[in-house]
Amino acid sequence: MKKQSLSHKIARLRSRLQEAEWRRYGALLLIGKLTGIGLLVVVMAFLNPGLLGSRVFAADPVLKGNDIVNPINTVWTLIAAFLVFGMQVGFTMLEAGFCRSRETVNVLMECIVDTCLCGILFWAFGFAFMFSHGNGFIGYHWFLLQDVPATYETSGVAFLAFWLFQFAFADTCSTITSGAMIGRTGFVGDLLYSVAVSGFIYPIVGHWAWGPDGFLATMGSAGNFLPGLGTSFHDFAGSTVVHTIGGFIALAGAIVLGPRLGRRFKRDGGGPMLPHDLTIAASGGLLLWFGWYGFNPGSTLSAMDFEGIGRVAANTTLAACAAGLIAMAVAYTKNKTWDVSFTVNGFLAGLVAITCPCYWVSPTGAILLGGIAGVIVVLGVDLLEWLRIDDPIGAVPVHGICGIWGTLSLGFFACGKYGATGPLAADNSAPLKGLFYGGGTTVLMAQAVGSAIVTVATFGVALAVMYAVNAMGLLRVSPEGESLGLDLHEHGISAYPEYVISSVASPAALVVEKTDKVVIPATQAFLATQGD
Amino acid sequence: MKKQSLSHKIARLRSRLQEAEWRRYGALLLIGKLTGIGLLVVVMAFLNPGLLGSRVFAADPVLKGNDIVNPINTVWTLIAAFLVFGMQVGFTMLEAGFCRSRETVNVLMECIVDTCLCGILFWAFGFAFMFSHGNGFIGYHWFLLQDVPATYETSGVAFLAFWLFQFAFADTCSTITSGAMIGRTGFVGDLLYSVAVSGFIYPIVGHWAWGPDGFLATMGSAGNFLPGLGTSFHDFAGSTVVHTIGGFIALAGAIVLGPRLGRRFKRDGGGPMLPHDLTIAASGGLLLWFGWYGFNPGSTLSAMDFEGIGRVAANTTLAACAAGLIAMAVAYTKNKTWDVSFTVNGFLAGLVAITCPCYWVSPTGAILLGGIAGVIVVLGVDLLEWLRIDDPIGAVPVHGICGIWGTLSLGFFACGKYGATGPLAADNSAPLKGLFYGGGTTVLMAQAVGSAIVTVATFGVALAVMYAVNAMGLLRVSPEGESLGLDLHEHGISAYPEYVISSVASPAALVVEKTDKVVIPATQAFLATQGD
Amino acid sequence: MKKQSLSHKIARLRSRLQEAEWRRYGALLLIGKLTGIGLLVVVMAFLNPGLLGSRVFAADPVLKGNDIVNPINTVWTLIAAFLVFGMQVGFTMLEAGFCRSRETVNVLMECIVDTCLCGILFWAFGFAFMFSHGNGFIGYHWFLLQDVPATYETSGVAFLAFWLFQFAFADTCSTITSGAMIGRTGFVGDLLYSVAVSGFIYPIVGHWAWGPDGFLATMGSAGNFLPGLGTSFHDFAGSTVVHTIGGFIALAGAIVLGPRLGRRFKRDGGGPMLPHDLTIAASGGLLLWFGWYGFNPGSTLSAMDFEGIGRVAANTTLAACAAGLIAMAVAYTKNKTWDVSFTVNGFLAGLVAITCPCYWVSPTGAILLGGIAGVIVVLGVDLLEWLRIDDPIGAVPVHGICGIWGTLSLGFFACGKYGATGPLAADNSAPLKGLFYGGGTTVLMAQAVGSAIVTVATFGVALAVMYAVNAMGLLRVSPEGESLGLDLHEHGISAYPEYVISSVASPAALVVEKTDKVVIPATQAFLATQGD
Repeated sequence: MKKQSLSHKIARLRSRLQEAEWRRYGALLLIGKLTGIGLLVVVMAFLNPGLLGSRVFAADPVLKGNDIVNPINTVWTLIAAFLVFGMQVGFTMLEAGFCRSRETVNVLMECIVDTCLCGILFWAFGFAFMFSHGNGFIGYHWFLLQDVPATYETSGVAFLAFWLFQFAFADTCSTITSGAMIGRTGFVGDLLYSVAVSGFIYPIVGHWAWGPDGFLATMGSAGNFLPGLGTSFHDFAGSTVVHTIGGFIALAGAIVLGPRLGRRFKRDGGGPMLPHDLTIAASGGLLLWFGWYGFNPGSTLSAMDFEGIGRVAANTTLAACAAGLIAMAVAYTKNKTWDVSFTVNGFLAGLVAITCPCYWVSPTGAILLGGIAGVIVVLGVDLLEWLRIDDPIGAVPVHGICGIWGTLSLGFFACGKYGATGPLAADNSAPLKGLFYGGGTTVLMAQAVGSAIVTVATFGVALAVMYAVNAMGLLRVSPEGESLGLDLHEHGISAYPEYVISSVASPAALVVEKTDKVVIPATQAFLATQGD
Repeated sequence: MKKQSLSHKIARLRSRLQEAEWRRYGALLLIGKLTGIGLLVVVMAFLNPGLLGSRVFAADPVLKGNDIVNPINTVWTLIAAFLVFGMQVGFTMLEAGFCRSRETVNVLMECIVDTCLCGILFWAFGFAFMFSHGNGFIGYHWFLLQDVPATYETSGVAFLAFWLFQFAFADTCSTITSGAMIGRTGFVGDLLYSVAVSGFIYPIVGHWAWGPDGFLATMGSAGNFLPGLGTSFHDFAGSTVVHTIGGFIALAGAIVLGPRLGRRFKRDGGGPMLPHDLTIAASGGLLLWFGWYGFNPGSTLSAMDFEGIGRVAANTTLAACAAGLIAMAVAYTKNKTWDVSFTVNGFLAGLVAITCPCYWVSPTGAILLGGIAGVIVVLGVDLLEWLRIDDPIGAVPVHGICGIWGTLSLGFFACGKYGATGPLAADNSAPLKGLFYGGGTTVLMAQAVGSAIVTVATFGVALAVMYAVNAMGLLRVSPEGESLGLDLHEHGISAYPEYVISSVASPAALVVEKTDKVVIPATQAFLATQGD
Repeated sequence: MKKQSLSHKIARLRSRLQEAEWRRYGALLLIGKLTGIGLLVVVMAFLNPGLLGSRVFAADPVLKGNDIVNPINTVWTLIAAFLVFGMQVGFTMLEAGFCRSRETVNVLMECIVDTCLCGILFWAFGFAFMFSHGNGFIGYHWFLLQDVPATYETSGVAFLAFWLFQFAFADTCSTITSGAMIGRTGFVGDLLYSVAVSGFIYPIVGHWAWGPDGFLATMGSAGNFLPGLGTSFHDFAGSTVVHTIGGFIALAGAIVLGPRLGRRFKRDGGGPMLPHDLTIAASGGLLLWFGWYGFNPGSTLSAMDFEGIGRVAANTTLAACAAGLIAMAVAYTKNKTWDVSFTVNGFLAGLVAITCPCYWVSPTGAILLGGIAGVIVVLGVDLLEWLRIDDPIGAVPVHGICGIWGTLSLGFFACGKYGATGPLAADNSAPLKGLFYGGGTTVLMAQAVGSAIVTVATFGVALAVMYAVNAMGLLRVSPEGESLGLDLHEHGISAYPEYVISSVASPAALVVEKTDKVVIPATQAFLATQGD
């Protein structure tokens, strides 16, 4: 066969297109081809997105969407969980530094044992009460982590990674409580109320707001609690769920316990007992700030919502910065000193406040609401002093009161741009808008209702628990034990057996004579116990 | 139509290929097919990735599977490496807090210098011995990190990220050793034995279990060590490789050194020397727990196995919680005090124990085996005291003995659900099943063999190294230097030049008169040296 | 040709299926089609072995490339930002530990308040000056974080995540400055110069090197600054931008302030004032090292460049290890003691030096340039002592001088393999090659020019700022306040109200009588102020 020229071929094609049989044959060929391609596309789209067009590399695995989303969201949640766990180091140092040296070992033990206890309780039933399906009041599946799915709900986060994240939150709540009860709580009493906090109060009240069917989570819609409200209760990372709960249990504990021996209040001519190590306390405060980057940004449970995690992290930072500066300034106007305790509690107050609204406000809003928290925390400390409540580290104003403020602040500052996070991306189709952005009082009302219910319920139950433990004679140590110091009384050792402790550390700290005389009660007492 | 034979069909095809019309028809068919495929490729390259259903965005890059897997696994491994490195802060604080103030600077220096030394040695040859291909006993490639591939083996982890992760592990092993040798080891001696540990003992023994061709890693299969065992030795994150090795080198060091001057043991009417700062020690212990979240979950080297990393992280937590509580309870039954040192060493013992089996056990199993570790660590401390071995921080019971328990515990608690992690996903086709789950003694035997070989080999070699350094007169400082305190003797400064140290800190700590008399040996001695 | 009805077509198809030739033709068409699809499937299965074996899961989302890249790069950058923020804990502990106890609260306050102030300034205009588009000297968009895009430039990193990362860097620079000014700077003066540093000097000078159109970033190309140089200025993570700027502002501050009262220099028969807590200082140094793993590897802004982040992390480690060992050895040859302060400042010097070249050098290069930094830092401390400049923590030699060395070292050690990082992968098409790798002096010249311009400009402006604040009488506290200690004078409290502080801590630390007499100035003075 001789080679045909291109022009000849085109001419032949043109003549054939005029013949019906050749046209039918061509159409059949085309239809068959397109059918084949269509089928192939469907099969491939079904099996695998992202097939061709990539550089060819023999060993390359083919990944489904969830093969990518689940690891990314799980890594994010796990690292956030680690950071939240790291807050235990911060709390331990903060509380240890702010207390007196004679009660330091007790603080260390409470922080560590609360963590251990919380882990076992959250494995056994705490997590089940809080995050499993049940009713609006409590969850009742997944006890002992039995029969759990691979990922939590639709988050794409491995179930046990989600468990760890939530355990770290529960642990935080439990540790907050201990801060207001430093220096006079018996260790067995601490174990008892910690079981109540980690195992029951936090998980059950928490279920209301964060459980898959909690009545505050579903509030405001048809068929649920207060259907007329028009919106549910929102608490992104726990201003209410973690901090208000922790802070108001702390308040109940401090009230039932009463103040430490020798603690005189300002209106009685006294003042707060001195901390014993501000370096440890301030470093612990900064570690808490560091760990908060797991707390708030991690609460998306989704790194796929990459704009969300960036915004939450930035808002968290700015609220803390503003609150620290404002608290320092307010304290300066009162005392004419640049007070490090108020500055630390200031930025912590900002962090607590931004914890609820961090996803829905703008950086400017974060600064404003954080700054207000910086004022509130100083006033809150004054209020407790006036009420003659001894809260050695300021747990109630920082966590309890600023938790309420943060929860309400969403009703003012929600900027109307952001709706809900999600495992694949944000869903901003129904954004939250607060009073200051023209959204009216809908969000504010829902926040007020949720905050009030949680606060009242928590405080009531916590009072009952604390009174019960107290009635068993286990909540407060004997005056003799307290005078000796909890460390020697309960734990058999001083935190610093070698250091010479000045007489300032005697129970009535500020009423000592001005003298060079050096007494070393802790060391002496220790030696006395060893000599037996 | 009758069925045609294949030879007939080929003959017909051959005859048709000689006819111009059939050839044109075949060519048309071929051209059409290729055109169709070409069109398909173009269309899909335009649409892809995210082939159908996604919004089309021109600038979107096309990613292969490994373009996604390698970054995810490398990020995971790197962050885990950072956390494991962070354990150095924890170790430094734990060891510093548990020692006496007079030997604190020495502890700081040892922790820092061990890290620096380990980095250089692991660059030069440690990593090569341990992780490169060679034989069952040692690896012998990649010295000075030369000629290394882009990723380690098939892990998808960037080679140098894997190196960093493994450096941090080696550093941990080296630091564990120093804990039992506090207070009487000369600094040059410390440098010498550290070279032996980081450069030779850890990498070579580690190669047996973790090297690509180590004889314990390949044990139990045809043609390898003990082919009849039926399974290889398993150590997910290093109960044996890191902790038993570190702990038994520590034991060898403590034995060769002998106790600190003035250290009297319980059966001689004495007891452990007092720690000097429990706040620092407990905070360091919690930082170690924090860093352990890199140690165990990071040992998957794969975040694609997202269920695996979640399970490992949760198991790690629960074992620590159970062990802390149990150790506290056991210590309470013995001493009637809530002892913070035992509680800290308790949760550390749980962490050491879960390190080997963390991937293969259930949360319930983790709690049980962790709880047992909490008993073992208290008994182990008693055993060392009875043996008159001075281990100031409890490195031997925590890391050495509980490392063995953790390794064996896999043989009891492997739950029969999980096989091996992998760069893309878990491979659970051959799950490990322990004695308590009906799997018989196969796994237990392999674990016992591996643990015994590593323990005996390490202890023997370490004894030889320590005796050799001792024979050179470099292991233990002079009695004068030890009485003055290592800090002033070796490092020319006290850790706390301003603090007044009580007489409790004199060498024979518990034998002082009960007196107000305050002596400040460290400060005085420092001034004496400055006065020259 | 007239249009045929469907029934006609079916009838024709039926009649044709009865003709052998048409049946053969149809069969051929079908076989060809199936063969083609089969071939395609085989080819694809060969290219993508995971295709056919993967489980089909209907709910799987379809992801575009950026759906994957943006989360991965944002997670990486955010976690790095958290780690860099964590450096504040390290700086706080390092500076607190290295100072005297009487000025510790002041150090804590400065570190915390610098952070808070920097956040607000960086929100308002600092970030805008530095990272927005403008001209070669300054950026002038994005003030108050208004009108910002979703991601920063082409990085794929969420804008506010990038903001947080850069805030943490700015904060670092500001904190470095305070280290050289410890013990005599009034708190209001500190606030004033901190505004200048965080709000103006760092962002504006930083824009030159890191801004999208900074004149050092675009230097060496046609139409830009010094077009003949042939290459731009490179500073991967900020040896110059963060450390030299911070270090030379610190130098200006220390010069304008003068030394602390009672500080006598070596050539006057004195020496550095003693640190008060080396445990805190060394732990803080190690925390800084930990945080540096965010600083350097995070500066890729891209985890997709997974080989890059692994290399940067490994290089960072090795430089620190080498520098720590070398500084310890050099200090030993001078003082015959194993000095912990020099060792800590040694590894920090190595970290500062590797910060600029970390992406472009080999591990071997990192060890060499780190080792040189270990020599330089000891000589630098001596130089400042000889110049009678009081830099309590060594901020000038560690950050200022080793920042310059690190910047220049790229000109020597760039290994000729690596070019630029990128949001999807590294682009090594135009690698940097230094003098020791045969690349001539091009890179070295560009580095020298950039380093010199930044150093001179920063130092000049900082001197002017410090003199201005001094002229307002706000930079240095009164001699009475300094003698009392900044803590009691400015902050109304001692860091350790309970500890008995020895007479070593009196202002002229090393000139005390050798006596047992114990004075407790801090406690006494505190009581005196309370007694008012």
